[in-house]
Amino acid sequence: MPLDWPALGRSGFVTSVSSWSTSNFIYLTKKQIRLASMSFTVCKELEASFSEDRTCKANNGMDRIFSGIQPTGIPHLGNYLGAIQNWVRLQEEYNSVLYSIVDLHSLTVPRDPPYLRQSILDTTAAILACGINPKRCFLFQQSQVPEHAELGWIFGCFTSVPRLRRLPQWKIKNASQNNEGNVGLFTYPVLQAADMLLYKSTHVPVGEDQVLHLELAQDIAQHFNKKYGKFFPMPRAILNSTKKIKSLRDPAAKMSKSDPQKLATVSITDSAEEIVLKFRKAVTDFTSEVTYDPDSRPGVSNLVSIHAAVTGLSIKEVLHQSVGLDTAHYKMIVAEAVIQKLAPIRNEIKRLQQDKCHLENVLKAGAEKAKELAAPVYQEVRRLVGLQ
Amino acid sequence: MPLDWPALGRSGFVTSVSSWSTSNFIYLTKKQIRLASMSFTVCKELEASFSEDRTCKANNGMDRIFSGIQPTGIPHLGNYLGAIQNWVRLQEEYNSVLYSIVDLHSLTVPRDPPYLRQSILDTTAAILACGINPKRCFLFQQSQVPEHAELGWIFGCFTSVPRLRRLPQWKIKNASQNNEGNVGLFTYPVLQAADMLLYKSTHVPVGEDQVLHLELAQDIAQHFNKKYGKFFPMPRAILNSTKKIKSLRDPAAKMSKSDPQKLATVSITDSAEEIVLKFRKAVTDFTSEVTYDPDSRPGVSNLVSIHAAVTGLSIKEVLHQSVGLDTAHYKMIVAEAVIQKLAPIRNEIKRLQQDKCHLENVLKAGAEKAKELAAPVYQEVRRLVGLQ
Repeated sequence: MPLDWPALGRSGFVTSVSSWSTSNFIYLTKKQIRLASMSFTVCKELEASFSEDRTCKANNGMDRIFSGIQPTGIPHLGNYLGAIQNWVRLQEEYNSVLYSIVDLHSLTVPRDPPYLRQSILDTTAAILACGINPKRCFLFQQSQVPEHAELGWIFGCFTSVPRLRRLPQWKIKNASQNNEGNVGLFTYPVLQAADMLLYKSTHVPVGEDQVLHLELAQDIAQHFNKKYGKFFPMPRAILNSTKKIKSLRDPAAKMSKSDPQKLATVSITDSAEEIVLKFRKAVTDFTSEVTYDPDSRPGVSNLVSIHAAVTGLSIKEVLHQSVGLDTAHYKMIVAEAVIQKLAPIRNEIKRLQQDKCHLENVLKAGAEKAKELAAPVYQEVRRLVGLQ
Repeated sequence: MPLDWPALGRSGFVTSVSSWSTSNFIYLTKKQIRLASMSFTVCKELEASFSEDRTCKANNGMDRIFSGIQPTGIPHLGNYLGAIQNWVRLQEEYNSVLYSIVDLHSLTVPRDPPYLRQSILDTTAAILACGINPKRCFLFQQSQVPEHAELGWIFGCFTSVPRLRRLPQWKIKNASQNNEGNVGLFTYPVLQAADMLLYKSTHVPVGEDQVLHLELAQDIAQHFNKKYGKFFPMPRAILNSTKKIKSLRDPAAKMSKSDPQKLATVSITDSAEEIVLKFRKAVTDFTSEVTYDPDSRPGVSNLVSIHAAVTGLSIKEVLHQSVGLDTAHYKMIVAEAVIQKLAPIRNEIKRLQQDKCHLENVLKAGAEKAKELAAPVYQEVRRLVGLQ
């Protein structure tokens, strides 16, 4: 999910989304976030408790969405269905929406400079092709707005080291680097807090593995407000309803760009032939019927999830249409639906990739507009803490 | 010394300077720094080894000095003699000199905003009154140049958490905060590295307790150069020759602004009466003769150091002039010399404090000039790492 801006290796583009609601978005309070982060087996209970929150619509002019995406190049199908499609929806529902290519976060793992440079443009091309409209949102590159790093420093002075050390993401990522993780990897949740609060964002699309980071941002906002007077709104999580897309070769794992099995992951620029091949080889089970039961039949259920997400149908409607089909046949139907969905996107990405100048101009214009919002907020922070 | 920009409480304005040479400045290589940081009992050996380095004069147009000072208000005599006087000398010796009021560092400990705001102006007034000339150096407020925080973020991605955790300053400061130190306090050495490297500084005045931080900056520069091609010069330490000024009430401790004993510390704005009183009450010992032996007679030796520093005489010359005097009489001679030295400074501070607008303009003009140097360096860093 977009909030997971930093990631290890090249897999961090966009990660998990919640999978516990079929209706639009879910808005979480801080307490609910804490509950959710403890265990996602409590989904159903939480879902029931959200009924009133869900009525919170984007009809208030003060609402503001912020989300970030790592520049790791062309997204895969899981990124698209899990995050970007929601971004497209959110830009239609909210009046003030900011999407950032969070390149500062991408430095928390080693990057080859030419690859990173190209990935920033490819990511821009891809999300534009997916339907992000710079007239409906501010699309910009994080490092073009200096206030992100500046506010990040100030917030670091309000965050204790033990608070960061306890975050599970740090523990996991640091362990994977032989406990030699870098300072950026350690402190990126503070920069995330700055990313969203710099725009006084009220709502943040968030993945389940990042809810604790949103909670950190809320704590920082609360601490700041207590010390200097009410200034920041309390950003709330938006959890996406789309089912998490799994690897086609191992439905127990998330679809990932860094998966060594080439057939596991569908890129949104894959050709029709590649898509057909990957779905044909998708791991299912020995039952030929098409049913939806992620626990006992993860492979075919993943296909059903993909099918529902690309067609916009519900799981129930998809199953209804598939009565009597065997999985081999069904795979080809899903592949065809994916091809239909991705074809125009793929063509548009290829077109946009030819026009580097246009992509750079889009980012530049987005940064200028973002800066217009960020600068007065940051200057007011400077004044409040006594720097001016 | 100026490099110790962060500090606990209100005591961190300017701390220790090295006390192991009587001739001008000392230039340290990295190996020498490591040696020095291990133990300052090796001073004399090191001093001998510096003979060739000491010939390194500021006659190369590429040399650039950077130093920072925390905005903690009006300096005391130790700050003035230990650091600011050297700043004044350095601006005469080097063609390119930058002095920064490092307000971002000051946030690493809690600050009262109105106090911090006033302290930035008071510090500016004080160092101008001490002889810092904005026509000979760039004097600016750190937070007015966004590239400090931005480069700090990038450098954080090149610095491992264990590397910072091993720094003695962190261990001491974190322990004093019940191991709940904040992220700013933990990562400030990385921001210091950014402060100096942002201007491709070649020489940095440094206190003995900060030599490991300069070494970190050197490591970061080296790491960066190895990865992206030679870009940053290796900044070298300049250790100041002035003796460390001690508390007048406890010559075992450094003179400090936060000393609870009001008579221990001479502010550079103290009146003649206050200065006389403080020196009259200065702790010495039961020997009335004036001699210089910091180990066995720290009290009177501290007076001799102060006397030498304010008159510009050597220790030997000062002792020669004091033959036959008892310490009671000598205290009044030192007090008088201090009064003579500080009187014009005190008057100038009071004059400048009346002109807030002028002080703000000096800082603004300084920031604009600093930014002209910083912006192209940072943009080149962005390009090198692949952000553009």
